[in-house]
Amino acid sequence: MQFMSDNAAPVHPRVWDALRAADATDSPYDGDALSRELDAAFTALFGRECAVLWVATGTAANCLALAALCPPHGGVICHREAHIETDECGAPGFYTHGAKLILAEGQGARLTPAAIDAVIAPIRAGVHQVQPHALSLTQATEYGRVYHPAELAALAESAKRHNLAIHIDGARFANAVAFLGCTPAQACAAEHIAALTFGCVKNGGMGAEALVCFDPALAEFVRLRRKRAGHLQSKGRFLAAQILAMLENDLWLANARAANAAAAELAAAAGQRLLHPVEANEVFLTLAPQEREALRARGFAFYDWGDAAARLVTAWNANPDHVAALARAIAAL
Amino acid sequence: MQFMSDNAAPVHPRVWDALRAADATDSPYDGDALSRELDAAFTALFGRECAVLWVATGTAANCLALAALCPPHGGVICHREAHIETDECGAPGFYTHGAKLILAEGQGARLTPAAIDAVIAPIRAGVHQVQPHALSLTQATEYGRVYHPAELAALAESAKRHNLAIHIDGARFANAVAFLGCTPAQACAAEHIAALTFGCVKNGGMGAEALVCFDPALAEFVRLRRKRAGHLQSKGRFLAAQILAMLENDLWLANARAANAAAAELAAAAGQRLLHPVEANEVFLTLAPQEREALRARGFAFYDWGDAAARLVTAWNANPDHVAALARAIAAL
Amino acid sequence: MQFMSDNAAPVHPRVWDALRAADATDSPYDGDALSRELDAAFTALFGRECAVLWVATGTAANCLALAALCPPHGGVICHREAHIETDECGAPGFYTHGAKLILAEGQGARLTPAAIDAVIAPIRAGVHQVQPHALSLTQATEYGRVYHPAELAALAESAKRHNLAIHIDGARFANAVAFLGCTPAQACAAEHIAALTFGCVKNGGMGAEALVCFDPALAEFVRLRRKRAGHLQSKGRFLAAQILAMLENDLWLANARAANAAAAELAAAAGQRLLHPVEANEVFLTLAPQEREALRARGFAFYDWGDAAARLVTAWNANPDHVAALARAIAAL
Amino acid sequence: MQFMSDNAAPVHPRVWDALRAADATDSPYDGDALSRELDAAFTALFGRECAVLWVATGTAANCLALAALCPPHGGVICHREAHIETDECGAPGFYTHGAKLILAEGQGARLTPAAIDAVIAPIRAGVHQVQPHALSLTQATEYGRVYHPAELAALAESAKRHNLAIHIDGARFANAVAFLGCTPAQACAAEHIAALTFGCVKNGGMGAEALVCFDPALAEFVRLRRKRAGHLQSKGRFLAAQILAMLENDLWLANARAANAAAAELAAAAGQRLLHPVEANEVFLTLAPQEREALRARGFAFYDWGDAAARLVTAWNANPDHVAALARAIAAL
Repeated sequence: MQFMSDNAAPVHPRVWDALRAADATDSPYDGDALSRELDAAFTALFGRECAVLWVATGTAANCLALAALCPPHGGVICHREAHIETDECGAPGFYTHGAKLILAEGQGARLTPAAIDAVIAPIRAGVHQVQPHALSLTQATEYGRVYHPAELAALAESAKRHNLAIHIDGARFANAVAFLGCTPAQACAAEHIAALTFGCVKNGGMGAEALVCFDPALAEFVRLRRKRAGHLQSKGRFLAAQILAMLENDLWLANARAANAAAAELAAAAGQRLLHPVEANEVFLTLAPQEREALRARGFAFYDWGDAAARLVTAWNANPDHVAALARAIAAL
Repeated sequence: MQFMSDNAAPVHPRVWDALRAADATDSPYDGDALSRELDAAFTALFGRECAVLWVATGTAANCLALAALCPPHGGVICHREAHIETDECGAPGFYTHGAKLILAEGQGARLTPAAIDAVIAPIRAGVHQVQPHALSLTQATEYGRVYHPAELAALAESAKRHNLAIHIDGARFANAVAFLGCTPAQACAAEHIAALTFGCVKNGGMGAEALVCFDPALAEFVRLRRKRAGHLQSKGRFLAAQILAMLENDLWLANARAANAAAAELAAAAGQRLLHPVEANEVFLTLAPQEREALRARGFAFYDWGDAAARLVTAWNANPDHVAALARAIAAL
Repeated sequence: MQFMSDNAAPVHPRVWDALRAADATDSPYDGDALSRELDAAFTALFGRECAVLWVATGTAANCLALAALCPPHGGVICHREAHIETDECGAPGFYTHGAKLILAEGQGARLTPAAIDAVIAPIRAGVHQVQPHALSLTQATEYGRVYHPAELAALAESAKRHNLAIHIDGARFANAVAFLGCTPAQACAAEHIAALTFGCVKNGGMGAEALVCFDPALAEFVRLRRKRAGHLQSKGRFLAAQILAMLENDLWLANARAANAAAAELAAAAGQRLLHPVEANEVFLTLAPQEREALRARGFAFYDWGDAAARLVTAWNANPDHVAALARAIAAL
Repeated sequence: MQFMSDNAAPVHPRVWDALRAADATDSPYDGDALSRELDAAFTALFGRECAVLWVATGTAANCLALAALCPPHGGVICHREAHIETDECGAPGFYTHGAKLILAEGQGARLTPAAIDAVIAPIRAGVHQVQPHALSLTQATEYGRVYHPAELAALAESAKRHNLAIHIDGARFANAVAFLGCTPAQACAAEHIAALTFGCVKNGGMGAEALVCFDPALAEFVRLRRKRAGHLQSKGRFLAAQILAMLENDLWLANARAANAAAAELAAAAGQRLLHPVEANEVFLTLAPQEREALRARGFAFYDWGDAAARLVTAWNANPDHVAALARAIAAL
């Protein structure tokens, strides 16, 4: 019974259908009919003109955006536990040609205007210190926490004051929108940000993320850098197909709701054990080593989180029986 | 009737089958069972120990290899018309952190020991000039030409003399092997080279190439840089599945033979019009603008090649009727 | 009365003499007689074979060393307040092609084995997190603190355990040696480190620092990268001359002793106001805004250090009357 | 008798005087009074507003300019024998983060609009090929040839048509102006170019070149990148002093005229042996190995240029007796 990672989940049947349908011979790279539909599809979704490029991974989407928003000699403010800082093998340094991640603090890997002020305050203007150019937020965060629209507005206001462009890593954006119940545009402060990584892979896709650029000039830049990074796939229609399938009839939301619901069920069982409120599809809870062993002995697979905790991740295909069994097992500990 | 690009061809049915079979939940990244089979599969194919990593594109495979073989302050010798020079938006400069492509000449985009000597001769030792560290060959070349084993041996000897590591861009390696009728190891001088980009996408794959490292230390380096470049896909099992399907029962060779046969049929019809001997799945032939127009009027799609020529590319799924029709149409011009 | 920066001090007369003597026509770049003397001069100084390259700035020396010790995908552990982190505009990111500075904590900008362990502990092996490759220490630190030989030995032991190469930023190495009263080799644990930036500019030089490589292979790498960074000056003899003048008759130590003595005199006057023990030529002390104003009104120039403190820096040319006057003025506050 | 390199010449006495005068304690970096004079001095010289930064080497000046004019994914058109291509160890690739030098042909290392058209013609728009963004010219060229104002105007027109920013490498700009007898602005088409490397080191300086930015925004960018490259010297006043001394009473022109006159005397003696017209301070002439040996036996030092030629370089301090002796010796061969 799998609670390791949403990356390990299978591809959704409707994504499979779309992939098969994309097989008909068509133009290479992103000149195909499907790739050309992306801009309109996301413009409709966000109610705001945007230009959209597919890439295979969230790392590539995040880093292409950062390269567009921050010069090599600049800095990107992000949380100390942001994925771009902790889990991408220095990819932001590669894509930005050496820009610096400036690390801020915050509960649940969430930033606040005060946290941003705190890292900017000691930076003297001039050429000696790296000057911040961008702010990278994660929605939902690495701890499965979300930003509410009012919080995003306050962060956008802070970014504007400090002259920072905003990128949002939305590897689990669907889970955040599903939790918030607001529009996608509200869930990312679309009118205030430059770019959003709209995740699909963790949510039933195979190997495609959408980089949504709310500024067309940004997209032109990213288009060049995507090619230069070896991310312009020659059969790009298969990436476009996955993304369009996700949007069709809001499959992305349905999938995220299923994952969130499973996580909520586990959260209810975990009670006081929870390390963070559960607002997406991740559950962090205290579990002593022998408790973890006991659960594993009963067939539950998950990651340790330090010495006395664990991380449970649910996916679009969460098996209700497995979830219920795990919830019972946790409650019974 | 499509003769534009092998990139535009569909995915082979057996690759589809393998993709579907890979859908069962498994470990993320390259910890899955399929990815772990690659080393053994290619070691068997080449009769020589190798370590193999999947990536989505030939650009990424080529450039990861070059980054492993050439330091940022070094140079890579390649043909003036090599794909890495002409069609990758400077990706080698990105991946190698600024190394220089040193351009050599040769008929049909093929290099010779003499051509290598000619570019190396004027380079003074020391710190002022960029020193060559690697040699990148293409098998088959951008003009659909192949290197015979004896030619590769001579190039390897030259590389050894100049202390150059060898990378082979094998985006169309299958076509070369199919033409040569030798072993895969002979077709790339496996005992003399460091890395081979083993292409699948143009040969019936969806979005996976295999970077074959004949030196395990190289693979360790590439593993890190692949992640850093955003090319470590979290559902990597789908890339491994494509590659393994290609190898199974030599599908890769069967596909290449089909494409080559179609090209040969067109070549026979083109006769004196041929700009290059046809040894793979590309046909370059003189065609005046009005001749190109006439062919297009009859439904044949292909790329112009300068003012008075055209490039025809065949793929694994070449339709015999279409090929025959185009052959007739060319012969009748 | 100048207590702003040792960078603002004049060039020492014996350095001027050496510069003039170097004017005779000679070979360009580093082929001149003076440049060729450096290796032997430092080998004698450290009692250990070393290869030495001149560069114009400490930033260049530090970053060339880091580029040699850490791959682009790796990390360098340094103090949160190290110069390479706070004052070089991201130069380490430029020279290393994007490596990450991993920031550790410690009083007085000094690191300890425990501080190193603390940053390494959470780093998982594998490709997802940036792996540390090097350790950069500063002797004396940004707060004018020094490492004693026993402390360096413990740090070297820690580095060895974690497989980290060591670089020491010795922009004020002379001041540290003068304070410690040990040999230069002891003051940098020469037998355990890869490279030392041996500072001259702050100590009576004009525009030359020596990068001392305790591994000849390192020097070969740096030689190439120095040229590539535009730091191979064509009249390099003038840089070599400065450095050799510094070593001759231990001018470097005499200059540092003078600066240290002036700082010690100020420290004695500051008493309880001191923020850090004074072990080199920098004095950090609490000074309220009105106190700073009062001192400035009497002609003393220095930098504010936050809201209620100041930094005083002495140099080789410290004017005894000025120093005494400032000491009296501080004591009288 | 030295005819090896103008880099080997001594520092001019008036530059020495200026260096000594700059020794008075002053602000570090480029906050000193001398550095702040540069903009006005060059604005007066070129009759056009400009912002000027000192750096230690021509390589750094050239490459900082290119980094400002060309993105990492772009290309810079230059001559196949331009210094940035042949003699800077790939420094342009380092500073531009991997941009490509696109090599054009031309007699005497001089470019023409036709040569530029020839390299641009085959470049398809789009993301697959590197697009040119800048043009780098050298005045005087590596072969001691100059561009006349009308030729520069034609090149500027070509650059404008292709949307290329222009940088001029003026390591020997003084020699070009001295030869042309026009204004400095005319000799670099100042109204049409973005940046000029104004050389001093080869013309009597010690270690300072001026990067003249005819666009203030460019200077802001370069200011950051200079620091990031370790080229912001803390005692920058000594670089500013050299440059200002060069401009004072047109020392730069007097020095160049002396060097040019010496070269002209040698050229007259060389007659039919000349490989290039002599328009600056370099003489390339055919000399058989035994002729070279004969000259060397008489005490003349110079570089071989291939198998049957030599390069003679004169400097500001050309000794009339040595020049006359060499001229006689060549004439007598």
